Amino acid sequence: MSESIIYLDPDSSLTLQNQIRQKLVDGILSGALPPGHKLASSRKLARQLNVARNTVVLAYQQLIAEGYLVGRARSGIFVNEEMLETRVGYSGATVASSEAETAVWRRRTKRREIAGRVGTRDLPNWNEYPYPFIDGKFDASLFPLAEWREASRLSLSVADIQAWSSDSGDADDAMLVDEIRSKILTRRGIQARSDEILITMGTQNSLYLISRLLADRSVKAAIEEPGSTEMRELLRQNSATVILQPVDEEGIVVDENLRDCDLVYVTPSHQIPTAVFMSPARREALLQMAQKDDILIVEDDYECEINYLNRPQPALRSMDDTGRVIYVASFSKVLAPGIRLGFIVADAQFIQRARALRRTVMNHPPLNNQRAAAFFLSLGHYDALMMRLGRVLQERRIALRDALNWTRGVPMEISPEVGGTTYWVRTPVDFDIEAFARAAARRGILIEPVRKYYGKEHEAENCFRMGVTSLPVERIRPGVTRLVEVIRTQVRGKVEQLSTTTGDWLKGEDLKVAMTGATILYREVYGAPCTIRYHSDGSMTGVLGFSNEEQDVGRWRTDDDQFYRQWSRWNYGEEKGYFIVIDGEQIKFFNKDGQIVDTAFVRIGGGLASRESDDLPDWSTTQSSTGPI
Amino acid sequence: MSESIIYLDPDSSLTLQNQIRQKLVDGILSGALPPGHKLASSRKLARQLNVARNTVVLAYQQLIAEGYLVGRARSGIFVNEEMLETRVGYSGATVASSEAETAVWRRRTKRREIAGRVGTRDLPNWNEYPYPFIDGKFDASLFPLAEWREASRLSLSVADIQAWSSDSGDADDAMLVDEIRSKILTRRGIQARSDEILITMGTQNSLYLISRLLADRSVKAAIEEPGSTEMRELLRQNSATVILQPVDEEGIVVDENLRDCDLVYVTPSHQIPTAVFMSPARREALLQMAQKDDILIVEDDYECEINYLNRPQPALRSMDDTGRVIYVASFSKVLAPGIRLGFIVADAQFIQRARALRRTVMNHPPLNNQRAAAFFLSLGHYDALMMRLGRVLQERRIALRDALNWTRGVPMEISPEVGGTTYWVRTPVDFDIEAFARAAARRGILIEPVRKYYGKEHEAENCFRMGVTSLPVERIRPGVTRLVEVIRTQVRGKVEQLSTTTGDWLKGEDLKVAMTGATILYREVYGAPCTIRYHSDGSMTGVLGFSNEEQDVGRWRTDDDQFYRQWSRWNYGEEKGYFIVIDGEQIKFFNKDGQIVDTAFVRIGGGLASRESDDLPDWSTTQSSTGPI
Repeated sequence: MSESIIYLDPDSSLTLQNQIRQKLVDGILSGALPPGHKLASSRKLARQLNVARNTVVLAYQQLIAEGYLVGRARSGIFVNEEMLETRVGYSGATVASSEAETAVWRRRTKRREIAGRVGTRDLPNWNEYPYPFIDGKFDASLFPLAEWREASRLSLSVADIQAWSSDSGDADDAMLVDEIRSKILTRRGIQARSDEILITMGTQNSLYLISRLLADRSVKAAIEEPGSTEMRELLRQNSATVILQPVDEEGIVVDENLRDCDLVYVTPSHQIPTAVFMSPARREALLQMAQKDDILIVEDDYECEINYLNRPQPALRSMDDTGRVIYVASFSKVLAPGIRLGFIVADAQFIQRARALRRTVMNHPPLNNQRAAAFFLSLGHYDALMMRLGRVLQERRIALRDALNWTRGVPMEISPEVGGTTYWVRTPVDFDIEAFARAAARRGILIEPVRKYYGKEHEAENCFRMGVTSLPVERIRPGVTRLVEVIRTQVRGKVEQLSTTTGDWLKGEDLKVAMTGATILYREVYGAPCTIRYHSDGSMTGVLGFSNEEQDVGRWRTDDDQFYRQWSRWNYGEEKGYFIVIDGEQIKFFNKDGQIVDTAFVRIGGGLASRESDDLPDWSTTQSSTGPI
Repeated sequence: MSESIIYLDPDSSLTLQNQIRQKLVDGILSGALPPGHKLASSRKLARQLNVARNTVVLAYQQLIAEGYLVGRARSGIFVNEEMLETRVGYSGATVASSEAETAVWRRRTKRREIAGRVGTRDLPNWNEYPYPFIDGKFDASLFPLAEWREASRLSLSVADIQAWSSDSGDADDAMLVDEIRSKILTRRGIQARSDEILITMGTQNSLYLISRLLADRSVKAAIEEPGSTEMRELLRQNSATVILQPVDEEGIVVDENLRDCDLVYVTPSHQIPTAVFMSPARREALLQMAQKDDILIVEDDYECEINYLNRPQPALRSMDDTGRVIYVASFSKVLAPGIRLGFIVADAQFIQRARALRRTVMNHPPLNNQRAAAFFLSLGHYDALMMRLGRVLQERRIALRDALNWTRGVPMEISPEVGGTTYWVRTPVDFDIEAFARAAARRGILIEPVRKYYGKEHEAENCFRMGVTSLPVERIRPGVTRLVEVIRTQVRGKVEQLSTTTGDWLKGEDLKVAMTGATILYREVYGAPCTIRYHSDGSMTGVLGFSNEEQDVGRWRTDDDQFYRQWSRWNYGEEKGYFIVIDGEQIKFFNKDGQIVDTAFVRIGGGLASRESDDLPDWSTTQSSTGPI
């Protein structure tokens, strides 16, 4: 790299000045612009890049002020030789990753607190699918952009930065705690002192702390069945005896089974996963039993605010005057899960212990986000957002209800309305829901088989769940329509041949045009999600895994009527050719014998709005037999 | 509250419009402005508040748009009656907090992973002390204000918000991972793929994950003695056998004791707490033994970047080609601990397990902060900041060295230079360091007895540590001068009487003037830190505890020559009178018999720049015998 090959991206969110700055810093730190290297004059660089000279001058000046560059009178601007002295060069060491290595880590790792099996986990690329009928997922288009920006900006004042930049020991931001007390808890009828509130990293984090504190092998804990997969896992990891307590149309059943429990975990405002709202009578019964039989209650106020079917109800904690309810809530469903803020409300005695554990685990949630959220609340944006979300989600729910009603004639049964933003769809007992869900995903539709919510999986209903928290209203009916097509295909169920398949068999120039810029969304044979992009320069990039942990690059080309692809590591790095059929939004790969090899959801022509990760680094050269199509 | 009593604070970081907005929202949500209440006209309110009418109009418009207010044609603006329907009122329940309650929680809590005893913990108000000689503390005045604002602002673009607002499963921000690879790890000679990096909530969180994964009762783990209190605690909590391995001037001693360990935790670039830099020969020896005897190494690269005594050295991880070094680092020491970001670099196999555990614990660190940090790095601010910090801290260290040299004649021995920003001061064996540290704190000086860093406390050296990472250069000599005065007093050691004490005995009007607006910093008898402010309206506010968990309000007054104070809960809520002597920056409280009761560090006249928390809520009415002066 030399400064003469700086490429400025007109679509970047960075200013031209910042782009120049960024490229120069990259060049200096990577050694491409070596210490002592003389840079092009601002006039010359400005002409090359076709920008105002002042843009370059300002970028240079900033870099001089920060020590990257030095100006020498009458001779020009140079890369500062001292800058790189604070860095160590690459060592020659390469990182081994042999089979033996794998065995080492397997032996060394003492605990395996993994968050459940592959099938139960969220896809990292779910929001690239056009029809993600998954309940509780966040819709980024509803994010309160201007309001959050305002709150963030306010939290960046000098006085506020003073308040949040330092380590606070294990104290939370007093302003946020106060806003939660006055603006959120009052909505739920809860009165709390500030020493009864602990800020956490969201509900998962809250439940982790609570289960570490309250559960061990001497503890009997009841959870709803079906219910939260996460809480079931946490209780089991802490060796508690787990009682699976059924849920009916009034919420968790309160009967003798609960009587000798130490702990009951409930989601009264929006039961996970049925969305049932716990009736007032049932709440009363649960609290009475808890008080009589000395049971602690963990109340997970999941999505309380957007369960618009019901008028808001007081939280269990507000109905209890014995302090045995531990209340858990989160900003994730409303504000944004990426910010990761939640809180626990409980007796000061419990909060003190939870705070000590939180300190051991991570000190405290980031204070800058705490302060920004505090401003967001203090300006009233939270309540306003809640009203808006309520309206939008109600609209979507009605659209889903109407679309499902319209599909009658398919062997599916929609459960009666229970509340929230989700519907349960029951299928015939012998219907393979997991295969159906995979087939739907290949058409761009995500649905959620409910098996994972059951502790007794073999007793799980043959059901899937459809939710609309992340789906704009205009995509709901088309999504349902496509889903019904998949159902019909599924019921037919025969192996596809190239000669008899539906869709367009692409050949010659048509094939090349279609694949150029195409993106496919895919789940490889072990279930891991994958996104592949075929770039116009003949390169392709792939991201695989639940954590995007595997990535590869490769080349693609067409030759006459065949499409060829070759990964640098995946699939042994071998080139392979396919016939391609496009059937609506589905791409089908056929081998030379005309038998179908795989199908995936496809978007032609780079229609995805998100950024392409063109600058994937070089990966290690070890090839692997695994990998997607 | 009515809208006519809105008070606008000219010093607020909020605009007038936002202040009006905030007060109106508070009024509406608290019920002070009830549903249907008619607001003053914009003209009238603007006149009352003495602001431009447009300011009020804009605030009203925004609140109408968000649903708080409704405008009715020709009749005015009203509080929206629907707004409060989404809220539940307070229930009458009060929260019990009896002794029995305490016993319940003590019995119920199964695990006590508390972060060490009171004496070993950080004070939440350390940065209000004028002379905090504590190493490793963050200096907010060095925070890169403009640069972080820029990075934050960039992370708030529409495309970036799309990228971070959603839940990512358990993936980290790819941009941040890439920036860490290219800009931070290369400084340390480490080459890593993206699947070998995990973002965490800082070093404490990294060590928590690592110790949960690698330590149990079958594991023998060596740590440095003296060494990190936190890591020692974590290993013990996971039931590992802990070997305390001595440190000399070359770092951890590598000998036969390590040979049968499974795990060694080291801080090679800046040993905690001695700041010794591990010599290249010792590094080599440790790695060789690790490879030969199958030992894992956890390398905590504490403050690597600001250990300016030495040229940067490659990390242990970069010198090892067998993948047995787990590398831990953090942004806290450089960027800001409040943001809480750090990372682990290790073999992909280990990172995969750590990621699964992280998911269970908290999903992932906030993605908005990850993206902002990524921009901060990508614009080169991190490297520039590092250079600046290096210069500033070196200056401070030299100032501390000079000041300590100048105090010869006191029975203290300063350890020879070992590196970093810290000095060890040895005292005579019979000198009570803990009492001395408490006396120093009463004069505004914080020093750190080193006992807490020792696993074998009884073998701890009689030493304290002085660091300057958070102390501006001009305060270093005055701080050392005052400390020497304390030493001299300590050596004299006699009980003070009002009749013979030094300083000014304040009487009458002088007493009143001095106490008005004064702030005292204090540690109560059990060691908990406390900040008390005497406000000009005769109220006082107090914050007590390591987590600011206890707070109280009260009244103060002067009557002739006595100062009276009465807390609403603390000290049985009883009024008590004192004679007050001010001796420099120390306040002394004497009882009626003229005997000294307590002393504290004082700042007269509200000289503190930080905001006053004037609006402390009413606390529960149960009074308590504990509490500060």
